[in-house]
Amino acid sequence: MTRSIKKIGVFTSGGDSPGMNAAIRSVVRACVYHKIECVGIYRGYQGMIEGDFKPMDARSVNNIINKGGTILKSARCLEFKTAEGRKQAYDNLRKEGIDAFVVIGGDGSFTGAHIFAQEFNFPVMGIPGTIDNDIYGTTFTLGYDTALNTVVEVIDKIRDTASSHNRLFFIEVMGRDVGHIALNVGVGAGAEEILIPEEDLGLDRLLDSLKRSKASGKSSSIVVVAEGDTTGENVFELKKYVEKHLPIYDVRVSVLGHMQRGGAPSCYDRVLASRMGVSAVEALLKGESDKMVGVQDNKMIFTPISKAIKGHTVIDTELIRVSDILTI
Amino acid sequence: MTRSIKKIGVFTSGGDSPGMNAAIRSVVRACVYHKIECVGIYRGYQGMIEGDFKPMDARSVNNIINKGGTILKSARCLEFKTAEGRKQAYDNLRKEGIDAFVVIGGDGSFTGAHIFAQEFNFPVMGIPGTIDNDIYGTTFTLGYDTALNTVVEVIDKIRDTASSHNRLFFIEVMGRDVGHIALNVGVGAGAEEILIPEEDLGLDRLLDSLKRSKASGKSSSIVVVAEGDTTGENVFELKKYVEKHLPIYDVRVSVLGHMQRGGAPSCYDRVLASRMGVSAVEALLKGESDKMVGVQDNKMIFTPISKAIKGHTVIDTELIRVSDILTI
Amino acid sequence: MTRSIKKIGVFTSGGDSPGMNAAIRSVVRACVYHKIECVGIYRGYQGMIEGDFKPMDARSVNNIINKGGTILKSARCLEFKTAEGRKQAYDNLRKEGIDAFVVIGGDGSFTGAHIFAQEFNFPVMGIPGTIDNDIYGTTFTLGYDTALNTVVEVIDKIRDTASSHNRLFFIEVMGRDVGHIALNVGVGAGAEEILIPEEDLGLDRLLDSLKRSKASGKSSSIVVVAEGDTTGENVFELKKYVEKHLPIYDVRVSVLGHMQRGGAPSCYDRVLASRMGVSAVEALLKGESDKMVGVQDNKMIFTPISKAIKGHTVIDTELIRVSDILTI
Amino acid sequence: MTRSIKKIGVFTSGGDSPGMNAAIRSVVRACVYHKIECVGIYRGYQGMIEGDFKPMDARSVNNIINKGGTILKSARCLEFKTAEGRKQAYDNLRKEGIDAFVVIGGDGSFTGAHIFAQEFNFPVMGIPGTIDNDIYGTTFTLGYDTALNTVVEVIDKIRDTASSHNRLFFIEVMGRDVGHIALNVGVGAGAEEILIPEEDLGLDRLLDSLKRSKASGKSSSIVVVAEGDTTGENVFELKKYVEKHLPIYDVRVSVLGHMQRGGAPSCYDRVLASRMGVSAVEALLKGESDKMVGVQDNKMIFTPISKAIKGHTVIDTELIRVSDILTI
Repeated sequence: MTRSIKKIGVFTSGGDSPGMNAAIRSVVRACVYHKIECVGIYRGYQGMIEGDFKPMDARSVNNIINKGGTILKSARCLEFKTAEGRKQAYDNLRKEGIDAFVVIGGDGSFTGAHIFAQEFNFPVMGIPGTIDNDIYGTTFTLGYDTALNTVVEVIDKIRDTASSHNRLFFIEVMGRDVGHIALNVGVGAGAEEILIPEEDLGLDRLLDSLKRSKASGKSSSIVVVAEGDTTGENVFELKKYVEKHLPIYDVRVSVLGHMQRGGAPSCYDRVLASRMGVSAVEALLKGESDKMVGVQDNKMIFTPISKAIKGHTVIDTELIRVSDILTI
Repeated sequence: MTRSIKKIGVFTSGGDSPGMNAAIRSVVRACVYHKIECVGIYRGYQGMIEGDFKPMDARSVNNIINKGGTILKSARCLEFKTAEGRKQAYDNLRKEGIDAFVVIGGDGSFTGAHIFAQEFNFPVMGIPGTIDNDIYGTTFTLGYDTALNTVVEVIDKIRDTASSHNRLFFIEVMGRDVGHIALNVGVGAGAEEILIPEEDLGLDRLLDSLKRSKASGKSSSIVVVAEGDTTGENVFELKKYVEKHLPIYDVRVSVLGHMQRGGAPSCYDRVLASRMGVSAVEALLKGESDKMVGVQDNKMIFTPISKAIKGHTVIDTELIRVSDILTI
Repeated sequence: MTRSIKKIGVFTSGGDSPGMNAAIRSVVRACVYHKIECVGIYRGYQGMIEGDFKPMDARSVNNIINKGGTILKSARCLEFKTAEGRKQAYDNLRKEGIDAFVVIGGDGSFTGAHIFAQEFNFPVMGIPGTIDNDIYGTTFTLGYDTALNTVVEVIDKIRDTASSHNRLFFIEVMGRDVGHIALNVGVGAGAEEILIPEEDLGLDRLLDSLKRSKASGKSSSIVVVAEGDTTGENVFELKKYVEKHLPIYDVRVSVLGHMQRGGAPSCYDRVLASRMGVSAVEALLKGESDKMVGVQDNKMIFTPISKAIKGHTVIDTELIRVSDILTI
Repeated sequence: MTRSIKKIGVFTSGGDSPGMNAAIRSVVRACVYHKIECVGIYRGYQGMIEGDFKPMDARSVNNIINKGGTILKSARCLEFKTAEGRKQAYDNLRKEGIDAFVVIGGDGSFTGAHIFAQEFNFPVMGIPGTIDNDIYGTTFTLGYDTALNTVVEVIDKIRDTASSHNRLFFIEVMGRDVGHIALNVGVGAGAEEILIPEEDLGLDRLLDSLKRSKASGKSSSIVVVAEGDTTGENVFELKKYVEKHLPIYDVRVSVLGHMQRGGAPSCYDRVLASRMGVSAVEALLKGESDKMVGVQDNKMIFTPISKAIKGHTVIDTELIRVSDILTI
């Protein structure tokens, strides 16, 4: 039988992403709306183990919907991977009277939540927050849309100077395992080539592509490279390789790094976070557990966390084709 | 039998929206890729009637993917509503050797295209370009996502000064017939109330809502109002009404206007435009006609234009509920 | 003899402007650095009269350097114009142990400070915070640079849609008495005409100018109008006049309004605020009073408040000439 | 005797910077206004040697005032350092009927112009265009203000994620020889420490500073490092050093790179470019030569190029002091 839920904990875990604050705000206010209590847990599972809790009311989340980062902080926590750690966390939650929690994070955070939910028959609900868009069960993760905009704006700036000097730039963007960011910003910024982990273009085809681009009369070339791409060892090696084998190019490198994780969330991410927060709370109140809320066809859907963490997102091969056509 | 297509015309029509240039680029390059010719038609149907054509090659659309507005210009054209006007347009297209066209625009532009396609058995394909997101057959129209971001950024700025002075702002955003922009930016900017054409809140409930907002301890209030809302006559009248009946507020008004139509498109709009342009060209080459390309569940879909112009988009009532919860 | 200063009050007053928070932060931390106490006074003179004080330490101003608005709120206060009001304020300051204050605001706020300083021999220092750049004794006021950037970015967006439709826009920007914003954004956005209070262009010359602009082959026209301009009654009347007398134009209007007061401050405004805050505190500690800190030739200067409020800023006539040349 | 000037060449040279296009536009239109011809020279001195010229009229510079980069392209040119190269350039200019030129660039470009002016008694005028602000004879160079804003916006984003994880970031910004960018964005972004070439802080004092910052309760630390700083070998070495000697910190690195050179210019840079372009043309027409236009105390001033290239800009030591105070 479902325990009646009177107090919900909320926290952010793993790498932060824009929209996490908007999701926290939504969880908190949905609790207030449904007349239950809400407690913020600082630094994810670490704070759960340390009992770093703070009651949240509707006003405590004023003016955060448009802020990057997470007011509840985030951390990775090794201790939660141990049974002792989880037991300590559970005891703290019970002591605080917390009946359920909403975790905002990625794959690793969800794995922890799933084990915890099973171990203690504790109601949990996940909200996918990561810029990488690599979580099964949702078309878009929180922060992904914002990161895409951040990156295309930066590439637009780099294009300005690349065009002025007829240069070639290798631009590394986030994506250790998946190429969603690289592929979309590559199309969005009109990149001449896009290198993603899902597809090994090969150095020969890269050179061919760059030769064609030069021959076509373009004044600059941008190659977007996902972190996890294996065509070259990394963007610096790619630069060296091209300089050696295709000396017609003046080559530069840019590694965008952590700026991709920050910034005010886009409207889409704010709305998505707002919807997901309410959905997560209401699902818990309806007795659901161990699920992740996602968006599909612009509607909220739920996926068992066990499926979400086992599933894989797939790259949009049709978009790769579109990219090839447009770089003509 | 389908006439073989060797030359495609492309134009923008009606109110412009961010992403139109990206769509033009995509149509042009998809033509080049498929080894057919592409002709730009200036100022929509007006230019078609006047024969204002320009051949486009791959390089003619360099560096426009990130530009607002439309390099092909746009206009409304009364003459195309007459049989004579359309006949003149048809003659010009045939003289130029144009076998099909892609129209980027909204409802009115599609109506013209549909009549033209029927009248002359001429292959046409539509791409939905409007910030209003009011076209049946696509979850998102080109420019909508960008407009949402433009508006939330502006409201964020207004919130700064509203909070400093504990003020109430009525902010008018675009949307003569539909409240999609208002509802989404309202949620995204954390507006205290949202007034849309689809729902007449009523002045009494508006006052109640504002009283509750003040009582809850908020330091400022933002009410987002769609142009077409009928709660008050307009934002200026709303201001007067509230000043008279709820003098606890210091009220200001802001009408955002045409800035909402401009600006560099968001990554999402650039990618959507890129996909739609290729899809439209390839659909024509496959013998399709009189259809509109749209996006649903992140995939390209096609809807007969006759259905697109008769159908209606519906406001997301679930999002209205989310908004009510979050303004607590 | 100078009283030794152990506790300084700081507040913002009048219309808010970006950079005020950065200035508050600077005043607070300069006090901490010099080992004196700092007290925030809410809502300007109103809070002084009501005793709405809050001790500030170095951490209380964390993460505000990049926030628009003012965490200390702002207000206009009629009561401070009375001797009784000022006496009440003085009593509250003394009770709180406040020996001096820094006021961040504009002309009106400085006038109050000057009278107060004279009346009670109380050390005060002014920091010019207003987007209008209309304060004598400083080349730039806090928030002015940010407002210029906000406005040119918006006009860039409007230009996109104006060009797409070959339209003429009248854009009203802030500046009731002075045309600094209008003139600079007009030049910066490449406006075809600029209407400012300092110069009555006259409706005839406006029409001539617009005719020339059209004849020169420009695809759109932007006329920037300062609020206080007297060429037409306002932008709506200007629209009507041009529609009547120059029907070649499709005319639109945009009133930018309060968004100009908000937003994250530019780097220049943040640095200027940081410098001014330290300078103001150190001047008080050196025994200075009744002065305003300003910037001239990139250096901090001081002007007696009595001179600052009597003086006038003058429009840069050379820049008007540059504008005329560039709109050719 | 001054040769009457009937045709002026204009070009950009060296590293590009935002505002160069605005300066080109200003030079071109000032020529049109004064009824003389203007010729664009592509790729700086390289295009001069190759005769890569293009006549410019008022409309050829439409819609570029807000674009980063340079429509005339830029390049470095070794050949111009030889007498033969310069002779070839001179012959080309005379053949084209060009009587004088305006060079928009930095130190190196000015050195070439100065030699050329002396060698051929050819009228030249310089406009300082570089983001580094390292040119003697002007308080601000074109592009510097824009770069400052670009960088603080990026650091604001990095701060979001740094705060969420309590991390320390070393952020490398441009400035091989001078620390103007680093110092100003450091103050503007509230950096905990700023490392510039003009001052060797020393690794010990860096550690002390970081320890103090941690102890003060700050949730994140940002250290801005100019490229040319010598405290550590580079940001990667600084990271390693701190990780080794101050393991309380989780350290990350970000190298901002070329994005700093691009982007739409700020209003200030657009206005400055507009003023400088007109001033440069009018100075040539008055018979001036071998000078650089600059801005001082918000007024146009002229400095002999020979002095500009020998002089040094000095870091604002008062601002270093302000920075030290504010990081308390």
